[in-house]
Amino acid sequence: MLDIVFIAGMILFAISSVYFYLVGRDKKGLNSAFLVSFLTLVSYVLMWQGKLTVTTQAGEPIFWSRWLFYGATCTLLMVGIAQLKGISGAKLVELLYLTAIVMFTGFLAARDLTNTRWIHFIISSVAYVLLVSQVLSVKNKESQWVSSYILFGWTVFPFVFLIAPTGLGLIGAALAELLYLLLDIYTKIIFNIQLGRKA
Amino acid sequence: MLDIVFIAGMILFAISSVYFYLVGRDKKGLNSAFLVSFLTLVSYVLMWQGKLTVTTQAGEPIFWSRWLFYGATCTLLMVGIAQLKGISGAKLVELLYLTAIVMFTGFLAARDLTNTRWIHFIISSVAYVLLVSQVLSVKNKESQWVSSYILFGWTVFPFVFLIAPTGLGLIGAALAELLYLLLDIYTKIIFNIQLGRKA
Amino acid sequence: MLDIVFIAGMILFAISSVYFYLVGRDKKGLNSAFLVSFLTLVSYVLMWQGKLTVTTQAGEPIFWSRWLFYGATCTLLMVGIAQLKGISGAKLVELLYLTAIVMFTGFLAARDLTNTRWIHFIISSVAYVLLVSQVLSVKNKESQWVSSYILFGWTVFPFVFLIAPTGLGLIGAALAELLYLLLDIYTKIIFNIQLGRKA
Repeated sequence: MLDIVFIAGMILFAISSVYFYLVGRDKKGLNSAFLVSFLTLVSYVLMWQGKLTVTTQAGEPIFWSRWLFYGATCTLLMVGIAQLKGISGAKLVELLYLTAIVMFTGFLAARDLTNTRWIHFIISSVAYVLLVSQVLSVKNKESQWVSSYILFGWTVFPFVFLIAPTGLGLIGAALAELLYLLLDIYTKIIFNIQLGRKA
Repeated sequence: MLDIVFIAGMILFAISSVYFYLVGRDKKGLNSAFLVSFLTLVSYVLMWQGKLTVTTQAGEPIFWSRWLFYGATCTLLMVGIAQLKGISGAKLVELLYLTAIVMFTGFLAARDLTNTRWIHFIISSVAYVLLVSQVLSVKNKESQWVSSYILFGWTVFPFVFLIAPTGLGLIGAALAELLYLLLDIYTKIIFNIQLGRKA
Repeated sequence: MLDIVFIAGMILFAISSVYFYLVGRDKKGLNSAFLVSFLTLVSYVLMWQGKLTVTTQAGEPIFWSRWLFYGATCTLLMVGIAQLKGISGAKLVELLYLTAIVMFTGFLAARDLTNTRWIHFIISSVAYVLLVSQVLSVKNKESQWVSSYILFGWTVFPFVFLIAPTGLGLIGAALAELLYLLLDIYTKIIFNIQLGRKA
């Protein structure tokens, strides 16, 4: 099951890489949709290989490398989001730092099998709340859809983290990774298609 | 003793994170004082956990993760310092690279228990001298205090490194980490309070 | 033999660091020639130490840390190349991301002894082709020499990777590292001397 999820992820993000590359080819500016898909493809190859994991007492594998890749991809997504929100310069740099901190402390929490992981999880959550509240506080017509997209698409990640083997262990690794795949499709492919249409 | 130092660090930098967040809330621009404190909090949590260490022949632990976090926090501090010194653009980028190299080679020296660590230490020191000489060469009235702050506050770090278990081992890990904590308070909290007053 | 190659690299890049530092001292802007040489010096110290390696079934060591350092140095080189090509802003950021992805997936391929390394190698090659084709598509008189320099100097790297223990294993580690040293001298010292003359 885990294998199927990761192979599906590899195929989907290989296709979306080609798609976003071709679509964004002649645009000036940063083709972040392509870079996000391409980096996510690399991330799925590594998870499919299955070496960068720790195993919980219940025998469930945790694929912690995911969160390091989110550090690279979600900062790229944040650049696009900030552009729509009209956030730039030093304020954008702050949002990028916060995004990187959320994902890095998420990685620390995922890699850690002791109870100390909850400290990392809390720190990560605090950074996340600060990040999202700053992004949502900027309101304009064009970015209304982005706000709801973030509120739903991004906030489900820590929720899955919480019920997955990384947190309370209410669901297994296979279901957790399937949910993450669906979220990845939503936040990295569907979002970028919609972004391309509005831009 | 080590535990007390790290718990004190966690509490202090948790408080300073909240303080700098609230103070810097309405300012435009990058709230680097908050980000520095927040990242230092994460660094102290990891040192308190005590997993990212090597142990010297004398049985003293070396907390090498500290230097990787300095790579992130000291580049942020350098942005503030450069602003006061009127350094920007490509020259600032060079200072940020040098700061990152100083801390990364410091990490290599800290992690290394063989004599080769002295090569890393020398390379780190060369980069440090180049960095500080460039920063101090820019003189203006408003930044006089910054120059003396760097000369004292930053230069004591490699000195502690030298006498700590990372270097000659003249002092133990507990005293070394206490000295680092005092330096962290001076360079990351007191400095940023002073910077906020002058800005 | 390996030792001689790495010691030669350390000496050469120590000398070129001093040279580029002195030459670039009074220039405004980023002294990237110096930073590239200095970082390459650190890279050769680590390879000479020989700890950051994996060993193939044929008993040949692979020095994978090289590719992580290329992630830092080749992005710096790309800044200089882009300047000559008149590429800046968001397009430059995209090239830097692509360069970093090429080197990071190169690192993944180098570190990996299983057949999956070919997936990483293919992904790295795709990113490389996209990178080079974008750089070469910009044509102007001043940068004609840069295009031929990249086509030869950079493209030989993946070719050595392919015949070295990292790939098909047609040549041994000593010869591979010697070839990389020659390429490093060509792409990081000779190129930067030439760049300094034209600028």
